[in-house]
Amino acid sequence: MNEVIRLLQNHRSIRKFTEQKLSEEQIEAIIKSAQMASTSSNVQAYSIIGVTDPQMKKELAHLAGDQKYVEECPIFFVFCADLHRIQTACRMREQEMMYQLMEPFIVSTVDAALAAQNAIVAAESMGLGGVYIGGIRNHPGAVSELLQLPPLVYPVFGMCIGYPAQDPLVRPRMRMEAIYHENTYDPGKYEKEIEHYDEVMKEYYIKRSNGKMQTTWSEQMAERFSKPVRAHMRKFLEERGFRFD
Amino acid sequence: MNEVIRLLQNHRSIRKFTEQKLSEEQIEAIIKSAQMASTSSNVQAYSIIGVTDPQMKKELAHLAGDQKYVEECPIFFVFCADLHRIQTACRMREQEMMYQLMEPFIVSTVDAALAAQNAIVAAESMGLGGVYIGGIRNHPGAVSELLQLPPLVYPVFGMCIGYPAQDPLVRPRMRMEAIYHENTYDPGKYEKEIEHYDEVMKEYYIKRSNGKMQTTWSEQMAERFSKPVRAHMRKFLEERGFRFD
Repeated sequence: MNEVIRLLQNHRSIRKFTEQKLSEEQIEAIIKSAQMASTSSNVQAYSIIGVTDPQMKKELAHLAGDQKYVEECPIFFVFCADLHRIQTACRMREQEMMYQLMEPFIVSTVDAALAAQNAIVAAESMGLGGVYIGGIRNHPGAVSELLQLPPLVYPVFGMCIGYPAQDPLVRPRMRMEAIYHENTYDPGKYEKEIEHYDEVMKEYYIKRSNGKMQTTWSEQMAERFSKPVRAHMRKFLEERGFRFD
Repeated sequence: MNEVIRLLQNHRSIRKFTEQKLSEEQIEAIIKSAQMASTSSNVQAYSIIGVTDPQMKKELAHLAGDQKYVEECPIFFVFCADLHRIQTACRMREQEMMYQLMEPFIVSTVDAALAAQNAIVAAESMGLGGVYIGGIRNHPGAVSELLQLPPLVYPVFGMCIGYPAQDPLVRPRMRMEAIYHENTYDPGKYEKEIEHYDEVMKEYYIKRSNGKMQTTWSEQMAERFSKPVRAHMRKFLEERGFRFD
């Protein structure tokens, strides 16, 4: 196992940070690494907003469901799917942009995610840590207003980055067999794999919570998906100008 | 600049491969690194299919728009957004899954992308190279049938991986300023940034093609988005059971 693979496989979400700020060089290394991720046909259909303003971080922490580490981290990155920049390019060439389809929505969302994963890997390679914040989709309209996003841009997720002030356990994943299929998809193995993972996660939660948390993965999924999650997203995205024809 | 950041920033898409196969250990390192990427609330809403069967790779190469490197690479990974495994978990807990929203579609698409970026970084760290293949969305229904995907699973993109048999130039990205905003989004800088990038890309294309290719980024975007791209995606996704309420 080489150093890079060791780094990737040692990822933990960090939610407690020291007060130390990132240097300009570190921010540049993170963003330029993000930019070198692949992008569909070189469209580069994403933007990254680095929030360091204390009042803005406070508001974003609240909008993300009172996740105080969004306020406490030295820098909070927001990764946006972005068709606005391409629309600008089209206008410079006096061309109307066809943005109304599901395809550019997928492309821009994927572009934002690929860039983000490079960003967190770059950060971790420098001894920094972080956590993705999907919670900014709780109130995506207010987040978009705060960040002054133009039409055809939406915040996919945020990311707290800073120097770790905690050393959490690595959360176990499913067995490789549960995720990986050879040549064709085999759903027949899932019940066995889920039962196995339920046992692994039960032990992990007991260990992490000193015996207080007793649940399994399948219980968590059944609980989470028994009710609508962020049912406002379609309407929000349409308000931002996205279409899904 | 540390080794990891150097690796990330030196990414080039590789489309020519030697005949050398990957070892089982390499495949395991790639998949387990992919699995350690962040996943929204631990849903792990993606699957990876490793295609090594020559006939299947040949068909996939054709379906992806006759991209022959899909056939020629030793292994072709297909990254799928996957709500089917979660649905299985819900059923094991006698719970109906609420999958009909835009939110789980976004979550599963992002999960697949984060895993994929870790996969390619892990591969490159071992001296391998690769390229994302969005072209599998040209005929996503036929791809899904070939891979025997169940409902609530869709192929987001593929990825060729193998030992590089070429040494292409790194493709320049936009300036950092064009992608990165501090605290609030500033669309005012885009015209200048696009003009600058157009010049950079014009030079790059001339160099790469020995003077034969004369185009700019904004021309490419205007050309690409002047007509519908993959207008079948919404209908295809609905046929696979996805909903976007």
